[in-house]
Amino acid sequence: MRFKLTLEYDGGPFMGWQRVSAGPSIQQTLEAAVESLTGVHADVTGAGRTDAGVHALGQVAHVDLDADIPASRIGEALNAHLRPHPIAVLSSEIAAPDFHARFDAIARVYCYRILPRRAPATLTRGQVWRVPGKLDLAAMQLGAERLVGRHDFTTFRDSHCQAKSPIKTLDRCEVIANGAEIEIWCGARSFLHRQVRSMAGTLIEAGLGKMSADEVSAALDAKDRARCGPVAPPEGLYLVSVSYPK
Amino acid sequence: MRFKLTLEYDGGPFMGWQRVSAGPSIQQTLEAAVESLTGVHADVTGAGRTDAGVHALGQVAHVDLDADIPASRIGEALNAHLRPHPIAVLSSEIAAPDFHARFDAIARVYCYRILPRRAPATLTRGQVWRVPGKLDLAAMQLGAERLVGRHDFTTFRDSHCQAKSPIKTLDRCEVIANGAEIEIWCGARSFLHRQVRSMAGTLIEAGLGKMSADEVSAALDAKDRARCGPVAPPEGLYLVSVSYPK
Repeated sequence: MRFKLTLEYDGGPFMGWQRVSAGPSIQQTLEAAVESLTGVHADVTGAGRTDAGVHALGQVAHVDLDADIPASRIGEALNAHLRPHPIAVLSSEIAAPDFHARFDAIARVYCYRILPRRAPATLTRGQVWRVPGKLDLAAMQLGAERLVGRHDFTTFRDSHCQAKSPIKTLDRCEVIANGAEIEIWCGARSFLHRQVRSMAGTLIEAGLGKMSADEVSAALDAKDRARCGPVAPPEGLYLVSVSYPK
Repeated sequence: MRFKLTLEYDGGPFMGWQRVSAGPSIQQTLEAAVESLTGVHADVTGAGRTDAGVHALGQVAHVDLDADIPASRIGEALNAHLRPHPIAVLSSEIAAPDFHARFDAIARVYCYRILPRRAPATLTRGQVWRVPGKLDLAAMQLGAERLVGRHDFTTFRDSHCQAKSPIKTLDRCEVIANGAEIEIWCGARSFLHRQVRSMAGTLIEAGLGKMSADEVSAALDAKDRARCGPVAPPEGLYLVSVSYPK
């Protein structure tokens, strides 16, 4: 039986979503929990392959499993086997046998959290990017507007990105203040590798007064990776949600 | 020269604010940073002696020190010496020579964070109290209203509390939803030992449908520690701010 799982995790202790030999991954930790629950290995496929250190509030994954427990309690049973790893199944539901967490997704939302202050983060260490300087929120918002729409995002694409085309449609790019933090919210059907962190790094340059909105536009138009600001580190990035057709 | 420090910390790794022999305390860690900066021991006095595991977003402390650096950079210098402990000086300012962080405080605000869900906390582990059940926000709010005002808070007072009188004036007790969490905000000139955690535990009983608002009132009126709900654990509690006369 195929299940759709909605997942939350602290990406800090992991080498990223994907199984790698270098260290523990979210995928591998979930697969170990599944095997420990059912006695059988099953692949867990995620909607987004988050990088090392990137967090999730609403990653979605699918897995085929047969367990001798009611479908509604699969999430809870997996959580018991996931302990003490900071990965939680927030909800689980039976999915269509051909449901695919990655290929069926029609929208993804990411949030990048910035703590603009000199003092180090304490309660949120590893969960925000601390930028020791004042950020001009309005300047970041003006820059963000320039990124919305259908563009060739080569400037904001990691050199290892495997996507066939650098053309994506960014549906949403909003910069908001949330208490002492600044958040960048991005929404699109799909993203290029490191696109959100690349855009976040560039918008922070705008917030620091190092780039104008016109320069953000020019960087985008240049389709040149060298024109991207410093890529923001993984610890501020969250995969917030993934949407599917009704 | 006397300094007023505003502090943020993750209480998780500490035995509480106060110097104790059993393990590291916030106070002792700050005093070690001061000594490492100035070469001289100085007592650091906090406004609130937070318990083991309790966090702070705006604890206030005073300390006398003479360092060969500008007053405005004392906070930053201390932060360098506090690394890697999750304690940060958010701001530092020169205070009157007789300023006393504890005795001069005229108001304190605490927040208690609750995560009402079955799945374990991941990103906020150790920073919220996860309650695996549905909480009725309105019922909690009705209960909270009964606690506001000048009362004998014996019911909500730890047996080790050293305050001379159990009579306190609770200026604010609000229960609000914040995303997936529920927060209880309490404000008063001062609190009894474990008062906020005791009230939080009782309000959670109300949220779980185990106590009505009338029963919360009756527990308060009974002035009987045995009538208090289970004391909420320290990890959900935050000392948010401390106020002083202008």
